[in-house]
Amino acid sequence: MSARRRGPRAAGGDTREAILETARDQFSTLGYRATTLRGVGSAAGVDPRLVLHYFGSKRELFSAAVRLPVDPAALIGEVFANDATEVAVGVARALIGILEDPRTRQRALAVIRAAATEPEAAAIIREMLTQEALVPLTAAIVRDQPQLRASLIGSSFVGLAMARYVVAVEPLASTPPEQVVRAFAPVIAHYLDDDWTETPG
Amino acid sequence: MSARRRGPRAAGGDTREAILETARDQFSTLGYRATTLRGVGSAAGVDPRLVLHYFGSKRELFSAAVRLPVDPAALIGEVFANDATEVAVGVARALIGILEDPRTRQRALAVIRAAATEPEAAAIIREMLTQEALVPLTAAIVRDQPQLRASLIGSSFVGLAMARYVVAVEPLASTPPEQVVRAFAPVIAHYLDDDWTETPG
Repeated sequence: MSARRRGPRAAGGDTREAILETARDQFSTLGYRATTLRGVGSAAGVDPRLVLHYFGSKRELFSAAVRLPVDPAALIGEVFANDATEVAVGVARALIGILEDPRTRQRALAVIRAAATEPEAAAIIREMLTQEALVPLTAAIVRDQPQLRASLIGSSFVGLAMARYVVAVEPLASTPPEQVVRAFAPVIAHYLDDDWTETPG
Repeated sequence: MSARRRGPRAAGGDTREAILETARDQFSTLGYRATTLRGVGSAAGVDPRLVLHYFGSKRELFSAAVRLPVDPAALIGEVFANDATEVAVGVARALIGILEDPRTRQRALAVIRAAATEPEAAAIIREMLTQEALVPLTAAIVRDQPQLRASLIGSSFVGLAMARYVVAVEPLASTPPEQVVRAFAPVIAHYLDDDWTETPG
């Protein structure tokens, strides 16, 4: 947490951002269940009613706190505007880029951690991911079963985040990002484009 | 937990199994840090010194509690004995089988949950996974960079576990296991066999 003051702050973007910063802190250290609007307000040095005024509920505060500073729909639009052969590499590079940038990595890992441990948070995250990332990704996929394809791409992203950045399994954790993109892009290409219907051996 | 008794139990396989069952319970509800040898002993109705006698340390108790009731090295040996074209499907089917069987799923998810939230548990899991699963898998891979390939296969397994069984993203969560095997096997085939060195577009 940065600057704190005593008593309610003047309303405005700074206050909102200070509340979010405190909320990120508390959600990641205390977990979803133990974090309260009152506790966040108190730690941020603002009237808890102001937290309620800005965010309406703990659920919405959580969603706002862990939201990535990029718009998934815009990012997806950009990547899919590329030449078809470059789409998979673009998706792989965008996903690994989210995990390589410390600002976005912190939030992505906070979401994954919360989802792993708290069923209540998992439900919120399921809905948030579905609306913000999987729906636009599904819309961009031209093959059959686009929703299943999008959720498999989501699963491969979560797996990479866990193995490389949370558990830090070697040598994956110390492999240069561009080499991970090379290894990962064909997986994205498979989930985007390959035929589902072949029978396993 | 099943049967409990007061006071120290007679030593033997039943006691050991009762301690492990209680430990699984406590590690998954209290988390790694809050679980103690004393607390496990007390809840299992045995002298805490007996817990120490059997397992030596909390670290070893955790490893024993979450160990899968299958031997990864034996499973890997079996799968790789198949015809080469069937190895990827065999690996995919074995991994999804671990997550479909309630007994093994509970332990796999307990490991993933602990790894996601507690750095101390993550370090233990990293070592355990490396020794028990990644080393034999690495030994079975015939291409270059077998360790990196094995850790990428591990990452895809963790991602599937998180997305399908923990967050339960739809439609992945309700897709029949055999269809997930069909979608997943080519990813395993890619990590096992494809050339790493191609340059991304």
